[in-house]
Amino acid sequence: AVHGARKMEDYGRFLALLVSALQVGFVAVILSLVWVFHYREGLSWDGGAGEFNWHPVLIITGFVFIQGIAIIVYRLPWTWKCSKLLMKFIHAGLNTIAMILAIVSLVAVFEYHNASNIPNMYSLHSWIGLTAVIFYSLQLFLGFAVFLLPFAPVPLRRAVMPIHVYSGLTIFATVIGTALMGITEKLIFALKNPAYSTSPPEAIFVNCLGLLLVIFGALILWMASRPHWKRPPEENAKALLPVGGTPEGTEVESTMTDGSHGDKADLRINSDAGRKQNLKLDEAAQRSTM
Amino acid sequence: AVHGARKMEDYGRFLALLVSALQVGFVAVILSLVWVFHYREGLSWDGGAGEFNWHPVLIITGFVFIQGIAIIVYRLPWTWKCSKLLMKFIHAGLNTIAMILAIVSLVAVFEYHNASNIPNMYSLHSWIGLTAVIFYSLQLFLGFAVFLLPFAPVPLRRAVMPIHVYSGLTIFATVIGTALMGITEKLIFALKNPAYSTSPPEAIFVNCLGLLLVIFGALILWMASRPHWKRPPEENAKALLPVGGTPEGTEVESTMTDGSHGDKADLRINSDAGRKQNLKLDEAAQRSTM
Repeated sequence: AVHGARKMEDYGRFLALLVSALQVGFVAVILSLVWVFHYREGLSWDGGAGEFNWHPVLIITGFVFIQGIAIIVYRLPWTWKCSKLLMKFIHAGLNTIAMILAIVSLVAVFEYHNASNIPNMYSLHSWIGLTAVIFYSLQLFLGFAVFLLPFAPVPLRRAVMPIHVYSGLTIFATVIGTALMGITEKLIFALKNPAYSTSPPEAIFVNCLGLLLVIFGALILWMASRPHWKRPPEENAKALLPVGGTPEGTEVESTMTDGSHGDKADLRINSDAGRKQNLKLDEAAQRSTM
Repeated sequence: AVHGARKMEDYGRFLALLVSALQVGFVAVILSLVWVFHYREGLSWDGGAGEFNWHPVLIITGFVFIQGIAIIVYRLPWTWKCSKLLMKFIHAGLNTIAMILAIVSLVAVFEYHNASNIPNMYSLHSWIGLTAVIFYSLQLFLGFAVFLLPFAPVPLRRAVMPIHVYSGLTIFATVIGTALMGITEKLIFALKNPAYSTSPPEAIFVNCLGLLLVIFGALILWMASRPHWKRPPEENAKALLPVGGTPEGTEVESTMTDGSHGDKADLRINSDAGRKQNLKLDEAAQRSTM
């Protein structure tokens, strides 16, 4: 009963964080719309400022909010009874939508720059942002080829997975850092009289939007890096998931990389028995999880 | 023999990454000095531009480079024969130096602003940067109280460790994002004729410095998040480390949170035998690793 109570508590904590992240991300999208409609020139597609304004709106909607959800979609406990393949399609689909929105948002900036005779690609924001989009496309393409198509052998998937996870989180963090640079640039360029440095309402408003992006990123990274919130391996999922329940063992923190819990696994591996057990379970995992 | 060869290969890979990170970080520090001495007004402490210039130099030296090294100091294999307590002092000491440099760099900006009648704390850069410094101080204080002082009980250390690791990496990433915003601000304000948008040599030069900060951050995050590069638990360290050798089991990827390897541990935990074994090893880990 104590175990069950702790499990529910952990499930409740996940839900609370998820709701917080969705709220923060959603409010950030709304604030980006308020920014461009209330403080700026609205949205249009005519080479003017209204076309530029698609850039922050689409980046925050697609490249931050939707990418963030794509990252944690495997963590949602109620999807653990869905097939892994379906979840892969949802993960890839959300990332594809995010990439399309990011590319459209780049087109908007380039067209605006060209129409206004502003040079392209001179700023650190543009250098890092374009690099992030290129790495994101590579990540999507490689993820599709290795994890979604049925051709890649298990050892390859096994070798690529940690890189895929690391790249995904690093690109996501870089995108948020790039958005913060973009906000900084836009506020300096757009606010002249009164200037950014005199803290007019728009400056305070958009600074708050920037803070929300950081909070959203921090929440997603926390949820994505808790090993006990991982989707359990396929075979077990059915046995472990009575309708509406949370699966056994998700709360056990044995796969923690950080701190003492990881050490347990290290210790286990150092014994011969552990190594043999490990090999056996290895095969089971190979058949089920990727 | 094959196992040994793979171990050496993995050790070589760690060393290659470490040397890359040190080089990239060191070059970033040098570039920040070249920036302020060759392109700007040099360094001074008189309320002028030379005082402001301490800000980027000290942030890049302390808050980026030294903080980055502090993060991975437990990962250096040749320190695994040193006591954990000594390593904690080194980790805390490097972070203390980083914090002092960050605070001095803030004093430099505030004094420069005040002397030049520029408002303080209006920009997103300043909001997020000050927040990062405050969280960093909290992290240092809590880390000291929980992990260095001998009073905290093991269950508390165990509960706080994942949060400590997560906060540390998130603050580090946020600091780099904030540095990128700072570079963006400074280039826009300082480059007027020719403007930043015309890509004068200083613009290209400092953009490259910004790229190096991102690469440094990405390397540190990779090294810090590979579970098989973790310091092994104390008791084992001595048995495992013949002079100059790399310890057994560091290369085994069983503590991976990402991908298939984590699933193995999940599976193992789901068996009763695994659970019992785990509890036993748990106690061993409690006595030795924190």
